[in-house]
Amino acid sequence: MQAIVKVSPAPGLKVATVAKPTVGPGEVLIAVRHAGVCGTDLHIADWDAWAQGRIKPPVVVGHEFAGEIVATGDGVAGGGLKPGQLVTAEGHIVCGHCLQCRTGNSHICKNTRIIGVDRDGAFAEYVAMPATNVLPLDGIPTTVGAVMDPMGNAFHAVLTAEIPGSTVFVVGCGPIGCFAVGIARAAGAAKVIASDVNDKRLALAQRMGAHVTINATRDDVVRTVLGETGGEGADVVCEMSGVPSALHQAFAAVRMGGRVQLLGIPKGEVPVDFAKEIIFKGITVYGVIGRKMYETWHQMRRYLTAGLLDPRPVITHQFPLARIDEALAAIRSGDAGKIILEIA
Amino acid sequence: MQAIVKVSPAPGLKVATVAKPTVGPGEVLIAVRHAGVCGTDLHIADWDAWAQGRIKPPVVVGHEFAGEIVATGDGVAGGGLKPGQLVTAEGHIVCGHCLQCRTGNSHICKNTRIIGVDRDGAFAEYVAMPATNVLPLDGIPTTVGAVMDPMGNAFHAVLTAEIPGSTVFVVGCGPIGCFAVGIARAAGAAKVIASDVNDKRLALAQRMGAHVTINATRDDVVRTVLGETGGEGADVVCEMSGVPSALHQAFAAVRMGGRVQLLGIPKGEVPVDFAKEIIFKGITVYGVIGRKMYETWHQMRRYLTAGLLDPRPVITHQFPLARIDEALAAIRSGDAGKIILEIA
Amino acid sequence: MQAIVKVSPAPGLKVATVAKPTVGPGEVLIAVRHAGVCGTDLHIADWDAWAQGRIKPPVVVGHEFAGEIVATGDGVAGGGLKPGQLVTAEGHIVCGHCLQCRTGNSHICKNTRIIGVDRDGAFAEYVAMPATNVLPLDGIPTTVGAVMDPMGNAFHAVLTAEIPGSTVFVVGCGPIGCFAVGIARAAGAAKVIASDVNDKRLALAQRMGAHVTINATRDDVVRTVLGETGGEGADVVCEMSGVPSALHQAFAAVRMGGRVQLLGIPKGEVPVDFAKEIIFKGITVYGVIGRKMYETWHQMRRYLTAGLLDPRPVITHQFPLARIDEALAAIRSGDAGKIILEIA
Amino acid sequence: MQAIVKVSPAPGLKVATVAKPTVGPGEVLIAVRHAGVCGTDLHIADWDAWAQGRIKPPVVVGHEFAGEIVATGDGVAGGGLKPGQLVTAEGHIVCGHCLQCRTGNSHICKNTRIIGVDRDGAFAEYVAMPATNVLPLDGIPTTVGAVMDPMGNAFHAVLTAEIPGSTVFVVGCGPIGCFAVGIARAAGAAKVIASDVNDKRLALAQRMGAHVTINATRDDVVRTVLGETGGEGADVVCEMSGVPSALHQAFAAVRMGGRVQLLGIPKGEVPVDFAKEIIFKGITVYGVIGRKMYETWHQMRRYLTAGLLDPRPVITHQFPLARIDEALAAIRSGDAGKIILEIA
Repeated sequence: MQAIVKVSPAPGLKVATVAKPTVGPGEVLIAVRHAGVCGTDLHIADWDAWAQGRIKPPVVVGHEFAGEIVATGDGVAGGGLKPGQLVTAEGHIVCGHCLQCRTGNSHICKNTRIIGVDRDGAFAEYVAMPATNVLPLDGIPTTVGAVMDPMGNAFHAVLTAEIPGSTVFVVGCGPIGCFAVGIARAAGAAKVIASDVNDKRLALAQRMGAHVTINATRDDVVRTVLGETGGEGADVVCEMSGVPSALHQAFAAVRMGGRVQLLGIPKGEVPVDFAKEIIFKGITVYGVIGRKMYETWHQMRRYLTAGLLDPRPVITHQFPLARIDEALAAIRSGDAGKIILEIA
Repeated sequence: MQAIVKVSPAPGLKVATVAKPTVGPGEVLIAVRHAGVCGTDLHIADWDAWAQGRIKPPVVVGHEFAGEIVATGDGVAGGGLKPGQLVTAEGHIVCGHCLQCRTGNSHICKNTRIIGVDRDGAFAEYVAMPATNVLPLDGIPTTVGAVMDPMGNAFHAVLTAEIPGSTVFVVGCGPIGCFAVGIARAAGAAKVIASDVNDKRLALAQRMGAHVTINATRDDVVRTVLGETGGEGADVVCEMSGVPSALHQAFAAVRMGGRVQLLGIPKGEVPVDFAKEIIFKGITVYGVIGRKMYETWHQMRRYLTAGLLDPRPVITHQFPLARIDEALAAIRSGDAGKIILEIA
Repeated sequence: MQAIVKVSPAPGLKVATVAKPTVGPGEVLIAVRHAGVCGTDLHIADWDAWAQGRIKPPVVVGHEFAGEIVATGDGVAGGGLKPGQLVTAEGHIVCGHCLQCRTGNSHICKNTRIIGVDRDGAFAEYVAMPATNVLPLDGIPTTVGAVMDPMGNAFHAVLTAEIPGSTVFVVGCGPIGCFAVGIARAAGAAKVIASDVNDKRLALAQRMGAHVTINATRDDVVRTVLGETGGEGADVVCEMSGVPSALHQAFAAVRMGGRVQLLGIPKGEVPVDFAKEIIFKGITVYGVIGRKMYETWHQMRRYLTAGLLDPRPVITHQFPLARIDEALAAIRSGDAGKIILEIA
Repeated sequence: MQAIVKVSPAPGLKVATVAKPTVGPGEVLIAVRHAGVCGTDLHIADWDAWAQGRIKPPVVVGHEFAGEIVATGDGVAGGGLKPGQLVTAEGHIVCGHCLQCRTGNSHICKNTRIIGVDRDGAFAEYVAMPATNVLPLDGIPTTVGAVMDPMGNAFHAVLTAEIPGSTVFVVGCGPIGCFAVGIARAAGAAKVIASDVNDKRLALAQRMGAHVTINATRDDVVRTVLGETGGEGADVVCEMSGVPSALHQAFAAVRMGGRVQLLGIPKGEVPVDFAKEIIFKGITVYGVIGRKMYETWHQMRRYLTAGLLDPRPVITHQFPLARIDEALAAIRSGDAGKIILEIA
């Protein structure tokens, strides 16, 4: 089959012909239709320090996707998964045995293996997945199914805070930030404020429902948030950028006793004034990683099938598998929303 | 009356004769019996940068105390407070009007005025307090009542985490850390580990119930905590030291998905690797300030009157009011637990 | 001044001239503009068993209102309340001293005194209220302000459950049920189902946003809810009717592990099969009484000022003070939504 | 092998020779050492209405046990389970696919199959279990391991309430009630009160740590609880009896805003005054069924290995497998605590 492969420990990704995966016990074989391209894929292509430490080539990349079940392995029957069904999947394959897995926190399983990173992934005609990781789309289109993995991060970030009636400040309007804006609106936020340095992304955030957008290159972010919240600060801040200056804005813009959800990954260390930024404000800070298995997926399917949220405006580009380089270039431009690959 | 006064904007505290406070509407006049000496009092005595920015001399210092009600103002009758009653008091006087006060979070009232800091305090024969801040001791001795304010910080830090059956790591064994050890034990922690750089303080922590103590100058703190927790890390970490290296130990020693309660106040900024220390671990970080009004006080009185906790081993020194300089010297030595002044 | 008074221990309410209230320390005098008529007022008028046990005539009735501050007593200044301000008020006057009041649960203060029940109320040209009970309308019209007390019950019932993405079943479409429908929609419920025996009320529920309405006299309520929820049952059920058969429907229609909020007051005892209706389903049942002081009011003002909710369709009738009998008749008809009195 | 079998649809249990179970993929074969006898086993023996509706003979009964792994099926290796290991097991075998299972609530899986009820159980020399249901004892003796299933119900009931510093009232001192007393003590309850009609059971409760015991045949239960709690009522009530009069005592003895955990199963309907017993008190009622998978088991192992709780005083009788009739008779007597069978 055709797949996008990290062939060797060096920059670049190749479109290559590789063996079609077989389906083991408890697994499902899926013919991929659409797949989402993520910053992680860019790191792998660029062969940066993180990729060099983690990836063992050759590996098929890609971890966000949706497609059609074409075969099921032994022991799968009970779960209702069947050939012909359109599905998406959680890309984190967890051990099921560790303390976290046994106490309802698989999203922080210490033994997590990520498809497209630690084992073959979804930028391919076929991918094999454990049945437990597979979720029926129930009418959600595969273009949307292909972005449910990153959208799940946004759901996790937003819905672990108390949103109805709250003021929510989303810092960073990449795809996950834009999803977060839409989710906060759907969950009954009283006011959603979004900041970024890129006007195209801010326009996307606005389209997803942001009441107020702030271009951090032109406006005083903290002052604007305080002004929009009667001087109190936002009840909930979702930090989606990983930019050090934005992190400080997150802490400065949250109200006394508020909640900061940290999802964006800063490079290296950021100096923090714990007293002023966290302790004296009495705030709660939560590290968002992955998606709750499978509460987040359940919530997400509820929102999507109920029509509470339409994430499609965030999908700005679509390319065939072979044009992965153009997809990566669009991400690099900083102007793109979510980019998906059309595979079948 | 006799009182300890910050007389002028310069280092030092004076024992002086000042006017006895009068009791206004809604207030209670208390004859102080015992008062606790706090690091804050040391900052005021030393006239450090914080004190220079906050204190407007002359002011009677001291914010931790217990004593006997000697008079009640108009409108106090309803609450059951009566002359002759032994009481302690919350030292944070809050506005009652701001968003935080109106939504059950007075401990982070933006308009908080602290006795002994922003208005006359408790190192005096008499202190006037709003009746709402006053709590009957119900048989708790005034020596213990005098330390309920800082012990309340420990209660707030410990009991906002889930303690029964948990492993708890207390970083820093000053008085509040030692209280936290005892509270964690009383609340059913499965294992309590405590670290400090001072063996006398570690001995106090052990006396308060720590199963394991670690001297950070000699032992590898993080390795020890991991070893004592089956390699997982502690479920709950209470950071009571404010020391930058200890903060990193707090984050390294908490388990995936655990909770870090931050109470110790670092000076200035501390560089943090948000990805590694917070986000990828999926932890929750909570800034502990003050005491919940008055849930924390209710819990504290329950523990003390039920005999779940005996905080007296933490009280290592007792001085008459006039010997405040010796009390401050004992704090400076680093060897002391809690120090109280005998006033009447 | 003119007021509606329960004059003597017998059926009936009278429009009478009574003394204008004076304003004590910590109180605010309010010129009432609009007041809501409640089932409680009907019980008082009818002099039923409850009224006979509780009311000590003569008393001015009415507990839901909004109006303009005309005077403030001593000690009120700090809170920002000023003559000329339009306000509403919490009708439960609590002691501030009991365990519940001291631990953030004033809504269940054992010493609660309700205006218009235990002391003079709001069906009058003027009413005096403790300043702490008074809330600025901040642009909310007084017609809406007059119904914020009962709407607060609905907010309390709905927002103490987890609503975003949930299926919500509201049992009983009186005014509070209709408010609950609108609040659940605003808070991001995926599907809101409402039942009643009266088509006019169901039409109101639909106008407030119910996706599905069920007339319990014609349709199988439980079967319909199960059908609309994929056979699972509703995540959250708000029982607003107090009707025994509806209570059983509430338990039968909630999903395994779901939550039932009980607000409607059944007369007398209702036989319950605890094993089948509660225990084997692993559900949580919560008794809703009053409004959280003042979290509920804060949420409510947020929803109303942000435009998340327009409760005005629920207000179906408006009468001048003197026509209280027509107001009570409209409630008795069972067809009315919320009824308000125009006072000034 | 030897086993206790429900042979036919009629009263009685037989000791019989049956085929040793084989171990399928994902399963573990366990040589049973000790097994707990439960009221459910009595219902099956007596062939009551519930048993007639649920049990399909022939079936090996018994669902509480501990023993040694003697074989593991395909695909089990990863979890660390190995022949020779001493283990216990969760007796509820869940589907893993339903909404409850996928959202962390397997304990209310709609498709639950219970060993010894819906499939062959543990009163036998060997039992085969899904590996996910199996938990290493880590040094806990098999006599204690044999009662971890019912003790887990007590853990679930107690630890889903907030216990540290609380007053806890346990209604009914059968084995699960006695476990609950010990757990509440270990979790830092300020006062534990227990009631029953049998003095032997009350003596057991006292041995497990009850501060106060009430014989409901002699004393006024509600008055005693109120007296012991300063007139407030208990913060948390665990109803473990299923007796209608005791249910009313549970509601009357809980404080305003408290929590009632319902575990005891009443026969048929019980009339409840919802207004007085639940709504006006603003309480929360929770239906306790099974054990949280596997949070409850994790907590339980923590308590037992940390020595926070010694449940052995509750085990009052021990019989060999062949003397099951004596075990059932001891349960019928009402005087027994927990009874276990010695199998190997």
